[in-house]
Amino acid sequence: MFSELRNIQGLDWQENGQAVLSGRLLHVLQRLDQRFLQWALDWGAEEFRFPAFLSARELDRLDYFRSFPHLATFPVALDGRPEKLRAFTDRPVDGDGAVRLGECAPVREVLTPAACYHFYVLFQDRCLERPADLTTVATCFRREAYYRPLQRQWNFTMREIVRLGTAEEVDEFLECFRERCRRLFLQIGLSIEWRPASDAFFDPPRNPRALAQRLDPLKTEMVFGGELAIGSLNVHRNFFGETFGINRGDQPVSSGCVAFGLERWLYALLCRFGPDDRTWPAAVLETDGT
Amino acid sequence: MFSELRNIQGLDWQENGQAVLSGRLLHVLQRLDQRFLQWALDWGAEEFRFPAFLSARELDRLDYFRSFPHLATFPVALDGRPEKLRAFTDRPVDGDGAVRLGECAPVREVLTPAACYHFYVLFQDRCLERPADLTTVATCFRREAYYRPLQRQWNFTMREIVRLGTAEEVDEFLECFRERCRRLFLQIGLSIEWRPASDAFFDPPRNPRALAQRLDPLKTEMVFGGELAIGSLNVHRNFFGETFGINRGDQPVSSGCVAFGLERWLYALLCRFGPDDRTWPAAVLETDGT
Repeated sequence: MFSELRNIQGLDWQENGQAVLSGRLLHVLQRLDQRFLQWALDWGAEEFRFPAFLSARELDRLDYFRSFPHLATFPVALDGRPEKLRAFTDRPVDGDGAVRLGECAPVREVLTPAACYHFYVLFQDRCLERPADLTTVATCFRREAYYRPLQRQWNFTMREIVRLGTAEEVDEFLECFRERCRRLFLQIGLSIEWRPASDAFFDPPRNPRALAQRLDPLKTEMVFGGELAIGSLNVHRNFFGETFGINRGDQPVSSGCVAFGLERWLYALLCRFGPDDRTWPAAVLETDGT
Repeated sequence: MFSELRNIQGLDWQENGQAVLSGRLLHVLQRLDQRFLQWALDWGAEEFRFPAFLSARELDRLDYFRSFPHLATFPVALDGRPEKLRAFTDRPVDGDGAVRLGECAPVREVLTPAACYHFYVLFQDRCLERPADLTTVATCFRREAYYRPLQRQWNFTMREIVRLGTAEEVDEFLECFRERCRRLFLQIGLSIEWRPASDAFFDPPRNPRALAQRLDPLKTEMVFGGELAIGSLNVHRNFFGETFGINRGDQPVSSGCVAFGLERWLYALLCRFGPDDRTWPAAVLETDGT
């Protein structure tokens, strides 16, 4: 894979696992997202913009915290009482850079771990007369054991296109986007392996109710360079429909989504076509067509 | 002011102080940001995209935590040892929706409270031969005592345009953007009061080193409806230059920025022109020209 990321114009890398993008590289990321957004709009999807937080109580209904406690990041504020704040200000940060939090306000939120969860929360208790096609792009947060520029970041950008509908409607949707991705990979000459996958569950044998058992093995990843998933197709069956009381007719709705990790796409394109996007095939950054 | 936000198409509001936007309303927000981005590009600024986190150690150099401990939100992950994670999964969320965090990993980051801080960290220890013109849009996080849809959110969207340069270069920059804002307000008929302001410092008499004393009274707010600041012009003198060792020639660089709170702009436009943007004057959503 590509190891010279430090020398790429427009990419700065911070110790805490996060990239700063600027210039042409930022433009590439924006163009990529525009393409996927255009795909979504062509399909008739409506775009949403969600906050950075999800309610912990809602996410708990998915058994997320039992399945992925190691990935979760929580937004924590200090205890707001003046004497507590004053105690904090005495020495807010240790010599090694760690914050001396002290007492905190109750934590009721979690930083969004995947863009599409917001939709199931928003649509809860609704009954759909037709399939709902939705899209959003979100900063997603996953604590990892290590970080790599563009490949594995504590925060990263995910564009998702989601359908809620009958099982057949979801299949039709996923088949269309699988085909669209295939055509794109062929057209630009990006070599991708489609591979069944499951998420990185915590301690699955001890988590009988975990998401694992219900979603696995319904994820197919688009794998670049033998190891990096730059996107995925996901069938959720009626897991979200049941959990959040979303119906299609008189049945819990099925759902499925296609997800694109934008920084990973950027990484794959840099590996495949080199550090200067002006030398890339024009089709890579087109936002209409394929 | 406008109290019927619950009935506006494309706006959903969550208890935790955050709005969900979709449809035409989301489009309005995007058009607003495009306009400000275009202003920045016209001025020759380069666009950046930053992560959601800032290093706490860096922010501490600004005395941020002594000045605004009540506003700060920290990204907190669990202690990653398997036995600790397992203990957490026993009962991750209380009946009242509060997360039972237990032991946590050391906290070294803070959720970005203002977009422009990232630039001073990125440019630290540099010596500039000419002014640097920069822009970014960021989700910013400020814990508040209460929240109101679009007006006061725990996370909100801020577009900033920043200049690092000599004091004269910063003045010239701010004067240009003051004039550009003035022309826009006049053109679309939005009544704005320009008002000197200072930020909401914690316990200022006990914080002699606080940002307050150095920045105040160098902020001018664009106030809508007598109380809502939808944007501001800020002179920092050489505070950031000194703190982060950024020089212009052989002097600590001066800096200034213009900041736009996008959800508040949306709120002001909804108040002024009504809930349906199709009835608004065309100039409101133009992205070139003024």
